[in-house]
Amino acid sequence: MASQTTLTSHDLHRCFARCAATPTLLVDLAVVEQDFLTFRASFPDSPIFYAIKANPHPDVLTRLSTLGAGFEVSSVGELRLLLGLGIEGGRIISSNPVKTPAFLREAHAAGIRYFAYDSAAEVDKLAELAPGSQGLVRLEVSNEHSEWPLDKKFGVDSNHALELLAYARDRGVDPVGVIFHVGSQCRSVDGWRVALEKTSRMWDEGRKQGAPLQILNVGGGMPVVYTDDRVPSIPAVASAIRAECAKLFPSDSKVWLEPGRAIVGRAGTLVCSVIGLAQRGGARWVYLDVGVFHGLAEATGGIRYRFLSDAPGPESPCTIAGPSCDSVDVISTDALLPDVRVGDRLAIASCGAYTTVYASGFNGFPGPETQIIESWGDG
Amino acid sequence: MASQTTLTSHDLHRCFARCAATPTLLVDLAVVEQDFLTFRASFPDSPIFYAIKANPHPDVLTRLSTLGAGFEVSSVGELRLLLGLGIEGGRIISSNPVKTPAFLREAHAAGIRYFAYDSAAEVDKLAELAPGSQGLVRLEVSNEHSEWPLDKKFGVDSNHALELLAYARDRGVDPVGVIFHVGSQCRSVDGWRVALEKTSRMWDEGRKQGAPLQILNVGGGMPVVYTDDRVPSIPAVASAIRAECAKLFPSDSKVWLEPGRAIVGRAGTLVCSVIGLAQRGGARWVYLDVGVFHGLAEATGGIRYRFLSDAPGPESPCTIAGPSCDSVDVISTDALLPDVRVGDRLAIASCGAYTTVYASGFNGFPGPETQIIESWGDG
Repeated sequence: MASQTTLTSHDLHRCFARCAATPTLLVDLAVVEQDFLTFRASFPDSPIFYAIKANPHPDVLTRLSTLGAGFEVSSVGELRLLLGLGIEGGRIISSNPVKTPAFLREAHAAGIRYFAYDSAAEVDKLAELAPGSQGLVRLEVSNEHSEWPLDKKFGVDSNHALELLAYARDRGVDPVGVIFHVGSQCRSVDGWRVALEKTSRMWDEGRKQGAPLQILNVGGGMPVVYTDDRVPSIPAVASAIRAECAKLFPSDSKVWLEPGRAIVGRAGTLVCSVIGLAQRGGARWVYLDVGVFHGLAEATGGIRYRFLSDAPGPESPCTIAGPSCDSVDVISTDALLPDVRVGDRLAIASCGAYTTVYASGFNGFPGPETQIIESWGDG
Repeated sequence: MASQTTLTSHDLHRCFARCAATPTLLVDLAVVEQDFLTFRASFPDSPIFYAIKANPHPDVLTRLSTLGAGFEVSSVGELRLLLGLGIEGGRIISSNPVKTPAFLREAHAAGIRYFAYDSAAEVDKLAELAPGSQGLVRLEVSNEHSEWPLDKKFGVDSNHALELLAYARDRGVDPVGVIFHVGSQCRSVDGWRVALEKTSRMWDEGRKQGAPLQILNVGGGMPVVYTDDRVPSIPAVASAIRAECAKLFPSDSKVWLEPGRAIVGRAGTLVCSVIGLAQRGGARWVYLDVGVFHGLAEATGGIRYRFLSDAPGPESPCTIAGPSCDSVDVISTDALLPDVRVGDRLAIASCGAYTTVYASGFNGFPGPETQIIESWGDG
């Protein structure tokens, strides 16, 4: 089972005391480092490319860079952010199968050479705008085990992938690898097992046809603990992936990873305030100053956050909603909270990934400010 | 039937020529003015409070202010924006039934006196932080005719509303009115008819019990044309509402409105670029540089946008997706487009409302820049 950041009552008070205003996302760099090192220990032979879309805070990127991480980017904005921090193109890959022409030009100029593709049109763009590229074809795999599926929009079936390998070679894009994504927050190692089995059949066929396949990018999707701690730990995911790869792929294959959520999710604690209370249809509603439009968009896609309160008394069920006028802005319909009051603070655990990046400022409510800390113990 | 902004091929070329980069939201102030004046002509006895969350661009707000509009706000951010433009509190109301304490204090200090509520906790906040307020109780009504429902999170049933009227009076909050919302983009005048009938029964009972009910805020929800032009026009909605009010409410009742989408939706044209093409499972996919996370969030909630292209040849079905790595980022699964190429520009009609306000910058892709114009004919 995976571990979660355990906040004691003392830690919770420290969290609240640190935040002059709410909402604030506290990001603990010591936890980021710990989780990155867990990845490295679990995948000792693999480069780890942090998917910066999960949380591109400069301090997070700098810490990961210092630790030797690679990075995965998709856009001009993300690329310039990394370059501005002194992170060089040789440590960066791009796995978005459909990239803007402007990004491809800049990425190539910056020295990025590894790009995903899953269409002939993308191969054409790579050939024209990023000559000399190494291409990874995106294979469609089942996303049935994931809470935030990433299939359908990207990825091709095995036959189409084999055609694209040949097409890439014809166009001068070196078909060196395959990439897949099991979906984000994947709750079972079977997600990777099934994907690897499918990939291996296509891989063998591709090598037979002469494609110099060597890089197997198993994507991200490694989960963090929200309310349910039965998700597999990173070492458990790693064991499954490594065992399957040893069984199914030639020994010269290189496994790459691009986790996002599992690097920064656990490190983030979102501190917010109760702004209203109501009884509706016999149910208790609790309204917060942070909601779906200001950081918690994944609540609408299945992520069930864990809410922490220091209010006294027993917990009871409630519905938790955000501050906007929009009824989509409901964060949880089955949370547990004690008898909180207007003005009380709450903490929401495991909010380091896919929160600030989704915040829009809709309805005039700002998204969370990020405050970087260095472990709960440092004062 | 409602009208849509008809872009000729000549207009479309002008749209494209105006945009140095994409995505760009062109907002035509002449259309904003025209649609506001249609509201005023259709509801000659009613103040119109523009719900600024739909599009708070300063030029839009200033134009509407010049035309004599009122404004509806929900947050410190929205309030300060209006005050910064010289719009005074006496022209502003707040209909968010759950407001932050900080907002209530600032709103009261700015001279706002009309506030919605739908819980005893909110009445308490009004009594303490905004003394002397006039309160409108939010009644829950059916949202079955709307594409973007706004029920469940807000609103109480009639019995609860009557209790809250009495509670508000006890706490010194003058219970002067009732507010409801039929949901956003309401496709049938029956939405308002049914809501008004329910409200009138509660209204009569409230008056009998001594509440000085006078203000009937019928909310927003008036639709604009996307792909389907069978939505009712503003004059048609107005006829239905006014006829129903004349029949069901005493002659001293005052009808208030707070439209958002129907004031700014039609005025906005989103210009974007094709960045990729693919064939998946026999279907054509077209990838744009704007998507669900950067302005088109309502695509996930039922809004079906209309795409305009100047590419030659007949239209055929396609799926249209945004630029991010996320598979949620699909804008349409049943669009019609001619044979577009990478680099081509497209226009998306009726994008003035609920687009820029939802944009997050996720994955390093910026939301649309807004460019204000004054009618297609001016250059």
